Amino acid sequence: MYALVFLVFQTEVSELLEQKAQLGGDDGKQQFVLKTPKGTRDFNPKQMAVREKVFNTIVGCFKRHGAETIDTPVFELKETLTGKYGEDSKLIYDLADQGGELLSLRYDLTVPFARYLAMNKITNIKRYHIAKVYRRDNPAMTRGRYREFYQCDFDIAGQYDAMIPDAECLRIVHEILSELDLGDFLIKVNDRRILDGMFAVCGVPDDKFRIICSTVDKLDKMCWEDVKMEMVKEKGLSEEAANQIGQYVSMQGGMDLAERLLQDPKMSQSKQACAGLSDMKQLFSYLKLFQVTDKVVFDLSLARGLDYYTGVIYEAVLTQAGATPAPDGEESPSVGSVAGGGRYDGLVGMFDPKGRTVPCVGVSIGIERIFSIMEKKAEAEKVRTTEIQVMVVSAQKNLLEERLKLVTELWNAGIKAEAMYKKDPKLLSQLQHCEESGIPLVAILGEQELKDGVVKLRTTATREEVDVSRVDLVEEIKKMTLVV
Amino acid sequence: MYALVFLVFQTEVSELLEQKAQLGGDDGKQQFVLKTPKGTRDFNPKQMAVREKVFNTIVGCFKRHGAETIDTPVFELKETLTGKYGEDSKLIYDLADQGGELLSLRYDLTVPFARYLAMNKITNIKRYHIAKVYRRDNPAMTRGRYREFYQCDFDIAGQYDAMIPDAECLRIVHEILSELDLGDFLIKVNDRRILDGMFAVCGVPDDKFRIICSTVDKLDKMCWEDVKMEMVKEKGLSEEAANQIGQYVSMQGGMDLAERLLQDPKMSQSKQACAGLSDMKQLFSYLKLFQVTDKVVFDLSLARGLDYYTGVIYEAVLTQAGATPAPDGEESPSVGSVAGGGRYDGLVGMFDPKGRTVPCVGVSIGIERIFSIMEKKAEAEKVRTTEIQVMVVSAQKNLLEERLKLVTELWNAGIKAEAMYKKDPKLLSQLQHCEESGIPLVAILGEQELKDGVVKLRTTATREEVDVSRVDLVEEIKKMTLVV
Repeated sequence: MYALVFLVFQTEVSELLEQKAQLGGDDGKQQFVLKTPKGTRDFNPKQMAVREKVFNTIVGCFKRHGAETIDTPVFELKETLTGKYGEDSKLIYDLADQGGELLSLRYDLTVPFARYLAMNKITNIKRYHIAKVYRRDNPAMTRGRYREFYQCDFDIAGQYDAMIPDAECLRIVHEILSELDLGDFLIKVNDRRILDGMFAVCGVPDDKFRIICSTVDKLDKMCWEDVKMEMVKEKGLSEEAANQIGQYVSMQGGMDLAERLLQDPKMSQSKQACAGLSDMKQLFSYLKLFQVTDKVVFDLSLARGLDYYTGVIYEAVLTQAGATPAPDGEESPSVGSVAGGGRYDGLVGMFDPKGRTVPCVGVSIGIERIFSIMEKKAEAEKVRTTEIQVMVVSAQKNLLEERLKLVTELWNAGIKAEAMYKKDPKLLSQLQHCEESGIPLVAILGEQELKDGVVKLRTTATREEVDVSRVDLVEEIKKMTLVV
Repeated sequence: MYALVFLVFQTEVSELLEQKAQLGGDDGKQQFVLKTPKGTRDFNPKQMAVREKVFNTIVGCFKRHGAETIDTPVFELKETLTGKYGEDSKLIYDLADQGGELLSLRYDLTVPFARYLAMNKITNIKRYHIAKVYRRDNPAMTRGRYREFYQCDFDIAGQYDAMIPDAECLRIVHEILSELDLGDFLIKVNDRRILDGMFAVCGVPDDKFRIICSTVDKLDKMCWEDVKMEMVKEKGLSEEAANQIGQYVSMQGGMDLAERLLQDPKMSQSKQACAGLSDMKQLFSYLKLFQVTDKVVFDLSLARGLDYYTGVIYEAVLTQAGATPAPDGEESPSVGSVAGGGRYDGLVGMFDPKGRTVPCVGVSIGIERIFSIMEKKAEAEKVRTTEIQVMVVSAQKNLLEERLKLVTELWNAGIKAEAMYKKDPKLLSQLQHCEESGIPLVAILGEQELKDGVVKLRTTATREEVDVSRVDLVEEIKKMTLVV
C-alpha cells in the first residue's frame, strides 16, 4: 500500500523536475528542447541516399532468392511479446494505458512474424521484412547502436528436408556482405543442441543451461579467464565443469570438426549433441555446393542470447581492422557483428491455440552498423540526393512563364526536371546550382531561342552547349541522360 | 492523496480484469489473443505487391519534381507535438513513462518535418517522406481508416516568389492521381486568409474563427442546414452571420471567382481576404501553365481542420460513384478524400528558439484509401508476389546436389532462381508450383541432360521445352526473361 503511493509520488516528482528543465527563462514562453528522443536520429537526404542504396542491394538479394514481403504494425498487444525475450524483456517500450488494449512497440521482427503465421495458419512461406524495431537499451550511436533501428529479416518457414533452408540463409548473408563490399567477413555457425549437449556432458546442471549459455555468449567481448570467473564465481558452476567447457569453446573448424566431435568420447554421449553435429556435417555439405565455405566457420563459442533458438545459430562479423571500434572503454557487444540468426522451430507453436508448430529458420541483417560504415565511406564522395536530369533556366528577365511551360512539357514526358521558384533568377546562380547538385543537363531559354523554336541544351560536366529544336528536345534529353 | 491511491487501484483492477479475460480454460496454459492491435493490420504478400506498385508511382512523381527524402523517428518528445493539433491532440498515442523522456508516436509527418528544419537550421528544401503515423481515432477499416497508417508527404520549404511552389504541389497531386488511374477526381482549393476575411466581414467574433472554421469543415459530410444549426445552436453564432457565411460557402469557380470576390463590396473590406484572393488569381495563372486547371476548383467551403495552415489549402476528392462509401450510417469524414495540404508559414518558427520562420507548403497523399481501391482492383487479377525467373527442377531422384549446384550458378549470375527444399520432389509438383506462382521458366535436370552437358529449359506459359548447353544457359535465360 505504502509502496504504491510512494511510486506514484516518485513519478510525479520526476515529471515535475522534467517540466522544470523544459521551462526556459522567465519570459513565460515555453522553450522547446530541439532534439530527437534519446537513442534515435533523423536521416538527412545524403544518409537517405546511402540507405536507399543499401536497401536496394539487400532487397535485390532477397528477391533473387524468391522471397515475398509482409508488413506488421509497429506495436503489438503487450502479451504477444511477453515471455519471448528472456532477460531482455525489460528493454521493451510500452505504450501508455490510454484505455483499451495494452500495447508495446515491437522488439524484433521475428516474434511478429511468428504471430502472423499462427494467426493466418500459414505453414509455408519465404518472406523478408524490413522495418524499424525498438529497444530501450543503452545507446552507443557512434557505433551504430540505437533505440530505434532497422532490421532486415529473411526467414523460411515450413517443414523441409534438413539444413537446405538453413544453408540458403547463410548463402544470403554471404551474398549481401560480399555485394556491399564492407571488407573481409566471417560467418560463425553453431547449434543450440550442440551447446546444450556440451553443457550436459561437462556437468552443468539442467537448470543452469540458459545462464551458462548467456555467459558463453560474452566470449566475443571478454577473454576466457573472465568468462570462466563469471561462471564459477557468479553463476556457481564447479571449476571442473568450467574447465571442460573451456576446452570445447576454443574449438573452431568446418565439417572436419563436426566429424571429430562425433567421435569425441564425451560429446558423443549426448544424443542432442550428436543430432546437432550430424546436421552440422549436412549443413557444410550444402554450403560447399552454395560456394560459401570460404567464409563459414563452425565455432563452439558462439551462443547467441535469444531464448527461442532450437537448432543452428549463426552470426557474421567483419574481421578487418577498421571494423573493430576504438578501445574507448565503452562496452561493445558483439564487436563487428553485422548479421545473425538461426533456427526457431518452437516459436510459432507458442502462438497457436493447439500448439501446432511451424519450423522456421531466418537471418537478420544488422543494417545500422552497415549504414555507419557506408556513410563513412560516402563522406568523401559526392552523393546526389535528387535525380533531376534537367534544370530549366533562363538568361533574361520575364521568362518565368516560358520556363514553367517548358518544365511542364518535360514532366509530361516523364523527365525529371525543375525550375527555380523565382520570377527572375540570375543565370549564373541557376548554373551554379546545377554544378553543385550534379544536375547533368541545363535547358536554357532566351528571347532568341523562343523566336527560333529551339532550346539551348548545356551539359553541366563539359559546359558544352548545343541548340536543339523544341520538338526534338525530349528525345534528345532521353538520349543524353542515358549516356551521361 | 486519496485520489492518487484510487487511481493506482483502478489501474490494478482493470489489469486484473484484462488478465482474467486472457486466461483461457483451467488447463493453466495462457491463451493468447491472436490479433493485431485495434485499428491496425498486417499486409500480406499480395497487399505488399500492390503497396510497392503504388509507392513506386508516388515516389517516381516526387523524384520527377526533384525532391530529396528524409526520415525521422516514429516517436517524438511529447512536447514537440503539444499545441500543434488543436482538438485532435487527444488522439495522440503516448508511450508509457518508463523513466527518461516523455514520448509520443508521431501524429503526422508535418510537425516532425518542421522540428527537423528548425533543429538543423535548414531554410530551403524540397523533400518527400513516406512513413507511418498514429492516431487513436475510431477506426473504420473497411474504408481505409486505420490507427496506424501511411502518409506520403511532399513539402517545399523556403522563401520563394508567391504561389509557384503552391502550384507545383497541386501539379503533383494531379500527376499522381492521374497516373494511379483511380477514376475522376477534383482538387478543391481555398485559402485560410480568405476564410478568416470572410468570417470577419460576416460578423463572426475574432475568438470564434477557429470553431466556426471547424464547423464549415464539416460541409463535406453534412448539409448546409445542419452546419448552420451547429453554428447557431452549439457555437452561439448569430443567425445573420451564419446566413452570410452560407452565401459565400456555396460559391465555386476558378480565377473568375477570385476576380469577382475582389470586387465584392463586403469581401473587399478585408485586407486579409484581398491578399488571399490576389494570390488565388496568381495561383490559377500558374496552374494553367502547369496544365491542371481541368481538375482544380476554388471552393469557399473548403476549410480543413488543422491549426497550422496560414495560406492556400487544398483537398483532392474522388468523384466517381464507386468512391463514395455505402450509406451504412457510419460516420465518414471527407468522403472520397485522397490528398490534402496547404501552406503553413508559421510552424517552423514555433520550434526555433528565436522564432525565425521558414515558409512551407506541402501535400499529403492519403495512401490507405488508395490502397483500398487498388487492392479491390487487384482482387480479380493474378498478382505475382515474388520475382523468381527460373525454377530449377529435376525429373529423377538423387539430383538434389545437382539442383543446388545449378541454382548457385544462376544466383552467381544475378538471376532470380529457386529450387525446392526437398531431396526428391516430384516433377509434377515442381511444375505445378511454377504454373501457380507464375514463374516464367523452368530449368529441368536429369541424368541424360547432365551427361550431355545441357539443361532442358521449359517456358511455363507455352510448355515448350528446348535443350540449352550449360555454358549458354545464363545468356539464354536473360534473353528469354526479357521477352517473357
